[in-house]
Amino acid sequence: MTTALVTGATGFVGRQALCRLAEAGVEVHGVTRRSSAPGLHAPGVEWHQADLLQPGQAERLIGRIRPSHLLHAAWCVEHGRFWNDPANIDWLAASCRLLRLFAEAGGRRFLGVGTCAEYAPQDAPCDERDSPLAPVSLYGVAKHAFHLALAAFAGTTGLSHAWARLFFLVGPHEKSQRLVPDVALHLLRGEAVPCSSGRQVRDAGAALARLLLSPVEGAVNIARGNAVPISMLACRLGEIAGQPQLVRLGARPNRPGEPLVQAARVDRLRDEVGFAPRYELDEMLADALDWWRAQSPE
Amino acid sequence: MTTALVTGATGFVGRQALCRLAEAGVEVHGVTRRSSAPGLHAPGVEWHQADLLQPGQAERLIGRIRPSHLLHAAWCVEHGRFWNDPANIDWLAASCRLLRLFAEAGGRRFLGVGTCAEYAPQDAPCDERDSPLAPVSLYGVAKHAFHLALAAFAGTTGLSHAWARLFFLVGPHEKSQRLVPDVALHLLRGEAVPCSSGRQVRDAGAALARLLLSPVEGAVNIARGNAVPISMLACRLGEIAGQPQLVRLGARPNRPGEPLVQAARVDRLRDEVGFAPRYELDEMLADALDWWRAQSPE
Repeated sequence: MTTALVTGATGFVGRQALCRLAEAGVEVHGVTRRSSAPGLHAPGVEWHQADLLQPGQAERLIGRIRPSHLLHAAWCVEHGRFWNDPANIDWLAASCRLLRLFAEAGGRRFLGVGTCAEYAPQDAPCDERDSPLAPVSLYGVAKHAFHLALAAFAGTTGLSHAWARLFFLVGPHEKSQRLVPDVALHLLRGEAVPCSSGRQVRDAGAALARLLLSPVEGAVNIARGNAVPISMLACRLGEIAGQPQLVRLGARPNRPGEPLVQAARVDRLRDEVGFAPRYELDEMLADALDWWRAQSPE
Repeated sequence: MTTALVTGATGFVGRQALCRLAEAGVEVHGVTRRSSAPGLHAPGVEWHQADLLQPGQAERLIGRIRPSHLLHAAWCVEHGRFWNDPANIDWLAASCRLLRLFAEAGGRRFLGVGTCAEYAPQDAPCDERDSPLAPVSLYGVAKHAFHLALAAFAGTTGLSHAWARLFFLVGPHEKSQRLVPDVALHLLRGEAVPCSSGRQVRDAGAALARLLLSPVEGAVNIARGNAVPISMLACRLGEIAGQPQLVRLGARPNRPGEPLVQAARVDRLRDEVGFAPRYELDEMLADALDWWRAQSPE
């Protein structure tokens, strides 16, 4: 019997994984800090409200659900602030507590959500097996520190675990200040789009659900195989929206601390987890554009 | 005004540092889980009882004292068990909470206590600046993970911090199951001493107090400069006790996971912190032997 708990389940990544888990016929529980959120009533999902940063709340949640599988996607994600938000330390602490409670309640498999920002800056595609890890942001360090603790704890207790390093993603429900929604909203308003010139790659995240239900151990990059510079993403969005002239590359400086290169090896994801992206990039961008068009006030 | 708080203050290391801080004229607060412990009434020290693993207790402690300096020596240290004790994860979480509370309450300098077990096994003396870190025990990993988080947090908030990597220590108040007390007690009883043959080095730790009150940033090895194999320590103890024939090297296997080589570079400690060991090794061993003789029932 598989009982999956997803933390951060109203977030960009958690929400996608939740639906895929429900489709897979697993008993799915989602937890969010919010008392209400649009789209909470996914079929086959039981919702719980809890703030994992508050003492006692993780205890009650784990005690009630006693999940066999845990996808821990909750973390501080406030746009522009999360890279060096002191709350990263709180999330490191809360994640440690959650791990201990989960294992003590009989949990069997823990999937943590990491980040491409754990890798040292490099031009070669990041490889889970041998690329050096040297995060520079507090976000990257706190995620890396939790992964070290998770792997060592799993190694001594026999807990099954995996660590999904997310490369940049694109899709509905993304925070509206993020780049692709930002570009999409500008385009929908017929406004010129100032873009940074950083090369970044975004990819979908339904792979998390598959990874959670797989027996694959350790770090796994979650990314599309082909690296796409963010400049190309913005240009494609402009073309799909029929207004390529509005996308002006280089008009906005890169964010300090934001990694420029985000290419990933996806051998583990493809060969061990058995996951292949379902959508072409253009489809994903068109979906995102449609979604934001539906959300934006006329 | 310097107000120093020492956690784990009844432990082997914390207790030594506490007295040195009081001697330095600093306002010193010690915290321990115990409601009573022998030797708690050090002059110039105010004691507090708190269990840092329990929710709310660190909040009350920091709120009451509002320390400017923090020496965080508390951690799980149960002999033979601490290397892979799941409680290492609890201490990682509790240390993160303490760090955040300390900084929010206006704390200026945080000294964490690390371990030589953070270093990758190597024959060369461990150097804080360039020796690779690759802990194998859960204890080493959790300490390493906390140091990463501490350094990154300090880097983004301007908090002053240092990280004292302790090499093996010898002295009074050490847990009686540890090697040197074990040897000493056997000798005092006139019994043969079974020893492991591991090469390990133990050194004193009053350097912590000096490091806390210094402006030195980052990781600092706390060790004697000259590496002494544990076999030599045991032999010297036998000689000092006048019963060298009772020390039988190789009669006890090395503990699994216990690092064999523990030599350290001490340039930073000597040149930047300005600390030199006060005692010769033979003096320290004789002191330890005297202390255990005074403790042991006739």
